[in-house]
Amino acid sequence: MDVLKGAVDFVQNKTKVEVNQRDIEKILSALNSTNHFWEVIFLSQKPFAVVRETINYLISIDFVKTDESGNLILTEKGKEFISANNIPVVKNYTCSCCEGRGIVFSEIKDAYEKFKEIVKTRPDAIVEYDQGYVTEETAYSRIALMIKKGDLVGKRLIVFGDDDLVSIAAALTKLPKEVIVLEIDKRLVDFINQAAKEHNLNLKAIEYDFRNKLPDDFVKSFDTFTIDPPETIEALDLCFTRTISSLKGAGCAGYFGLTNIEASLSKWYEFQKLLLNKFNAVITDIIENFNHYVNWNYLLPSLESSFAFVNVQPKLNWYTSSMYRIELVKDVDIKNEYINCELYIDKEAILYKEN
Amino acid sequence: MDVLKGAVDFVQNKTKVEVNQRDIEKILSALNSTNHFWEVIFLSQKPFAVVRETINYLISIDFVKTDESGNLILTEKGKEFISANNIPVVKNYTCSCCEGRGIVFSEIKDAYEKFKEIVKTRPDAIVEYDQGYVTEETAYSRIALMIKKGDLVGKRLIVFGDDDLVSIAAALTKLPKEVIVLEIDKRLVDFINQAAKEHNLNLKAIEYDFRNKLPDDFVKSFDTFTIDPPETIEALDLCFTRTISSLKGAGCAGYFGLTNIEASLSKWYEFQKLLLNKFNAVITDIIENFNHYVNWNYLLPSLESSFAFVNVQPKLNWYTSSMYRIELVKDVDIKNEYINCELYIDKEAILYKEN
Repeated sequence: MDVLKGAVDFVQNKTKVEVNQRDIEKILSALNSTNHFWEVIFLSQKPFAVVRETINYLISIDFVKTDESGNLILTEKGKEFISANNIPVVKNYTCSCCEGRGIVFSEIKDAYEKFKEIVKTRPDAIVEYDQGYVTEETAYSRIALMIKKGDLVGKRLIVFGDDDLVSIAAALTKLPKEVIVLEIDKRLVDFINQAAKEHNLNLKAIEYDFRNKLPDDFVKSFDTFTIDPPETIEALDLCFTRTISSLKGAGCAGYFGLTNIEASLSKWYEFQKLLLNKFNAVITDIIENFNHYVNWNYLLPSLESSFAFVNVQPKLNWYTSSMYRIELVKDVDIKNEYINCELYIDKEAILYKEN
Repeated sequence: MDVLKGAVDFVQNKTKVEVNQRDIEKILSALNSTNHFWEVIFLSQKPFAVVRETINYLISIDFVKTDESGNLILTEKGKEFISANNIPVVKNYTCSCCEGRGIVFSEIKDAYEKFKEIVKTRPDAIVEYDQGYVTEETAYSRIALMIKKGDLVGKRLIVFGDDDLVSIAAALTKLPKEVIVLEIDKRLVDFINQAAKEHNLNLKAIEYDFRNKLPDDFVKSFDTFTIDPPETIEALDLCFTRTISSLKGAGCAGYFGLTNIEASLSKWYEFQKLLLNKFNAVITDIIENFNHYVNWNYLLPSLESSFAFVNVQPKLNWYTSSMYRIELVKDVDIKNEYINCELYIDKEAILYKEN
């Protein structure tokens, strides 16, 4: 299997992300199933940079070629390797009724219909705050999960950053006692407060930068939080310092998405250790591909990639994340103070610039 | 909320299991939804002993009473509390197409049909080895998950303990390179080897006690393991010493069920720290209620409970577990030696005897 070893060395050297032979196998398996770059990422669930450089390597050893449209095609040599090493086609075992989430939200369908109306005029995702929002089905599946787990009805919910507008989705059900949003983007703060006013929702958005200390009256004050954090370890540490600080104590829960696209399993591993060892939080659920993100306009222009196969317009909602639920098992004391840190960019971020 | 606090103190004192007010709330929410003890456990997803003693307490303060059939009924006082504290009825958000697993196994339906035939003559679950097996749908959903994740096709699979007969389920698909079973119960070893012979499967079962060192040629030898471990911390530590030792290295994966019924979230927390800190394994998936267990005959006689509401024949497959998938992020060196330990009983075990 020198090909796999060669790929591991090349990709690791190029990306500085930890990679193993299974990662390469999974990318080969995805290439055996589609010719579309963004679908290879979706099917392999490996970091963007790892997929890009693996393909770069496979092209260099004549396993893969690209056509004039940027499609990825296995060569005879590539096909022979895949067959000799029993690397399968990816088959679809995902439940189509629930898009694989295991949960349906028919109980809150009315709120969902209203939500779809309201979000028609939502602000666009912008690069400045690393935005990119989930589909409306995702937002309501997340709400349904919270209800099912006993974390929403009669509870105080805090939403950290809300380009997803999940706060509006939650408040529309009339089930939480109160919903508070902390958000850096004034456009979203205004949009949410406007919706709250128009639809008479128990919902309030406040302008807030995660680096600042939490407003004092929000410390140990909420039952449940939700967040879609940036995925550098520094940002995750900062975000969980804030979110966990906001919870009342043991038994309170948090919800968030974490991708494999901007966070390798090695980063997941570091992050999970942080959750357990630093924040006294146990992981109760991880549901793969729960969160589906709508393609955002700034992606390709911001990438400035030199690879033709990357500069292809996505044909599917390829950017997904796993849904995590965590629960505090014991109280934890966290200093509430200003913390300076880089929020969005590390070597696994999509918008990381090649050298 | 003195009722919740009183319940926490009582239950903690009786069970020695860590409990918080949310746990009591969730049990109240379940009692607001069903009058059947075993369904209260299923809906609340709290440890058996915690549910039993919470109900015991709620009866003592006249929140709950039982009728002559052992049904649990909220009193007016109980209902008032529930209403005043906004404790909801549990509603069903579970996807009925996939029983909430997010996965379907239509691609391997033929193997599934054959499996259902073969297991008709399976050995009964016995108390001696803490047995209790999953439904056939569960077994095939687990196989489908392994395939989807790239952990079965062309891979060497090792099954640690197999009253579920998931080894036969896997081998029938003809997808793994080889399946090996290590199992303490000679009845199962014989049954599996007989099925392998009759159906010409690449499958072999070997008699093995987890306390013994792993056969040398099984160390660092497999791509994937599956296990349904006993849930004491000592047993989990022992089981993962064996299972992780059997994996080739980084990128290899393990599958197992873990309940909330015999393992509190505090135990989950200790166990997750073990996985991460001792075994270099990251958790990639936790899917609630994935594994459905068939009711087993020895349950009620073995419990010898003095509570009428416990001595009620279960009306549903109430015993479920979450499906975990873990992946090794880096190699780990583990001594391969005999380890003596108590496997099955701790204070959260169903068969733990009340003083």
